[in-house]
Amino acid sequence: MDPGVIKVGLLGCGNVGGALVELIDEQRDAIADRTGLRLDVARVAVRNTAKQRTVDVRADLLTNDAASVVEDPSVDVVVELIGGIEPARELILTALQNGKAVVTGNKELLANVGAELFEAAEKAGVDLLFEAAVAGGIPLIRPLRESLAGDRLQRILGIVNGTTNFVLTRMTEEGSTFHEALAEAQELGYAERDPTADIEGFDAAAKAAIIATVAFGVRVVAGDVYREGISGLPAADIAFAARLGYVVKLLAIAEADEHGVAVRVHPALVPIDHPLAAVRESYNAVFIEAAAVGDLMLYGRGAGGRPTASAVLGDVIDAAANRRRGTHTGLGILSKAAIRPIEDLSSEYYVALEVVDRPGVLAEVAGVFGNNRVSINKMEQEGIGKDARLIFITHTAVERDMQSTLRELRDLNVVDRVGTLLRVVGRE
Amino acid sequence: MDPGVIKVGLLGCGNVGGALVELIDEQRDAIADRTGLRLDVARVAVRNTAKQRTVDVRADLLTNDAASVVEDPSVDVVVELIGGIEPARELILTALQNGKAVVTGNKELLANVGAELFEAAEKAGVDLLFEAAVAGGIPLIRPLRESLAGDRLQRILGIVNGTTNFVLTRMTEEGSTFHEALAEAQELGYAERDPTADIEGFDAAAKAAIIATVAFGVRVVAGDVYREGISGLPAADIAFAARLGYVVKLLAIAEADEHGVAVRVHPALVPIDHPLAAVRESYNAVFIEAAAVGDLMLYGRGAGGRPTASAVLGDVIDAAANRRRGTHTGLGILSKAAIRPIEDLSSEYYVALEVVDRPGVLAEVAGVFGNNRVSINKMEQEGIGKDARLIFITHTAVERDMQSTLRELRDLNVVDRVGTLLRVVGRE
Repeated sequence: MDPGVIKVGLLGCGNVGGALVELIDEQRDAIADRTGLRLDVARVAVRNTAKQRTVDVRADLLTNDAASVVEDPSVDVVVELIGGIEPARELILTALQNGKAVVTGNKELLANVGAELFEAAEKAGVDLLFEAAVAGGIPLIRPLRESLAGDRLQRILGIVNGTTNFVLTRMTEEGSTFHEALAEAQELGYAERDPTADIEGFDAAAKAAIIATVAFGVRVVAGDVYREGISGLPAADIAFAARLGYVVKLLAIAEADEHGVAVRVHPALVPIDHPLAAVRESYNAVFIEAAAVGDLMLYGRGAGGRPTASAVLGDVIDAAANRRRGTHTGLGILSKAAIRPIEDLSSEYYVALEVVDRPGVLAEVAGVFGNNRVSINKMEQEGIGKDARLIFITHTAVERDMQSTLRELRDLNVVDRVGTLLRVVGRE
Repeated sequence: MDPGVIKVGLLGCGNVGGALVELIDEQRDAIADRTGLRLDVARVAVRNTAKQRTVDVRADLLTNDAASVVEDPSVDVVVELIGGIEPARELILTALQNGKAVVTGNKELLANVGAELFEAAEKAGVDLLFEAAVAGGIPLIRPLRESLAGDRLQRILGIVNGTTNFVLTRMTEEGSTFHEALAEAQELGYAERDPTADIEGFDAAAKAAIIATVAFGVRVVAGDVYREGISGLPAADIAFAARLGYVVKLLAIAEADEHGVAVRVHPALVPIDHPLAAVRESYNAVFIEAAAVGDLMLYGRGAGGRPTASAVLGDVIDAAANRRRGTHTGLGILSKAAIRPIEDLSSEYYVALEVVDRPGVLAEVAGVFGNNRVSINKMEQEGIGKDARLIFITHTAVERDMQSTLRELRDLNVVDRVGTLLRVVGRE
């Protein structure tokens, strides 16, 4: 057996798996020239071996018995691309226990039972790599783990869901409603028929948990992440925000200070001159604020078969090279995170109110802000029939105070409706 | 001796070196917690040990004998931050031969004698890492070498010089002349008193050579890089370009195809909606076009003590971890590059001409373009006194043909002056 040949066992051969098989075929010689490693896709587990595939996989490699792949003594590296928690978790644990390196793009799995898997990998002394799990083809995990290993990460702001960024781009640039933009995203294949996971922020929350885990070396699971989606977002607020110099983006935010770790996903107002504001369409980007290096941004394709396969293949080569050198890397010991609740965090806020249009209303409304320790930075008023809409941007305030402001405003007779609350997130 | 303690020998303690000493002090415990490695700055070689420093370095660590640091058996990792070719080259070679890992931020050295150093590192079986040599704090070398190891890199476009990007930003946004903008950059400390290396593109050319070497696995030296700076760039052309939907940036461009490798530095017109167009002030960014992953951009601080020290420290930790594991990484075998001369490359072009304003002139001028196989995409005319300025954007043409067009235009009686020629570089 040639020690330079690395046998890859693939679990799942859909969009990303198929692209990976293709990419390995295209790049096999180039990879061998550069690294001395020859990749060989030895086994491919699929649900249905008879199914027609867009990619040419030799029939004798296919199996519908995934367990046989992670048990196969000839397989060096297992690539898990089936998604979901079970049976992916069980299969990966078995692969690790059998001494195989594992590469996965499974964000749901890592965001829920990642700590268990990392521990198992450490115990087995093998790699568990997952560059593709967050922001698809963008190199993020490796820069966070290695390039910035000597820096102190402070805050990470990510546009990590292409579907919602596409929808928000259309709403911003074309004035589309949320439903029009979503329909267009579905037509173009950027959104699934059931778009809940993307639109309600669940996908971004899983990625935020993984980012926080890697960036701060703590155990954060999806359930720790405060989450708001964009399904209720009125187009009018996006237009008002634009007038005030902001672009609305769905952000995954992970930050750490001496009080603990805060991880959240919600739509946010980003200043128009911030690099994240220029991230359009279905592109992803991750903006990193670190003590020494300052601001960094990593930008690219967050999804798609070939971009994601490129990230997976980078990990496979890394795992293979480590294997040949008899070494592996790890996340180190993950400590328990002190998760800060959203109520304790501070932000500037955008608030839209519909009020009765008569003298004295602003004084009454402003009084409620003031009584709750929320100070107003900017206000704009616009007539709507015999009523008026008031748009406020506050100075930095504590979320708890902002929420009690909203509660009191709802009880005010002159307030017809408390509209959208959005947080302003930019440079600190 | 604690096997977890890694002794760092530092050559040079200026802006970056001082920040590195500080950063290691700040982050020592955090790094030890995460990696099990305790970094200890054991020796610091400086030109003048008596000089007042902004950073607190214990006097007994200082020496003006750099050779003693690279010979010191207790030193594990040598960090070279003295710059220039000699004595840096000699010191690094000695360090490598003595089995020490080396981290350097010295672009001039790598762009001229890099191949010799990489070979020496490979021979000695130790790391030679250089993340800080290109684009300062931005993780670039590691993503190129590792994350994209399975992809086929096609073209890399870099804004890799902060001085020129600051100058061009001022010219674009404030309408400053080149000299006004340069004076401002000098006042703010973004440009040196002798700005030649930045302004004439020498700094960017060295970085382009390193990028091409890493991206394509070939030997490219600074002298292989076609180079134009921005010192002759009229503010008027930047304004015309803006009207046509472009921003002017000084780009380092490395590309490879079946014909060979082309590496160049010159000002270029970038479409306003390209991510590089939004890179302002002294920020750097590197835009990567790869076969599978598509477009990526890495953005951040390209210079400055702390950002650069962050990149250096990432490399030091990597080298230290590899050392503990008894392994090292390398660039693999660098092959000889088939360097394509600029005359063979193709591009769209921006051409400004001053002509006599009378009927028939455009026909005569357009005839010269056509006779040289350069086809015109857009033309704008503007009166200047009794003369006129013609601005052309061509379709894609071969540089050789574009140059012969310019030569013939210079001989035309109706042409008063052939102005600026700029290449248009955007998405392919």
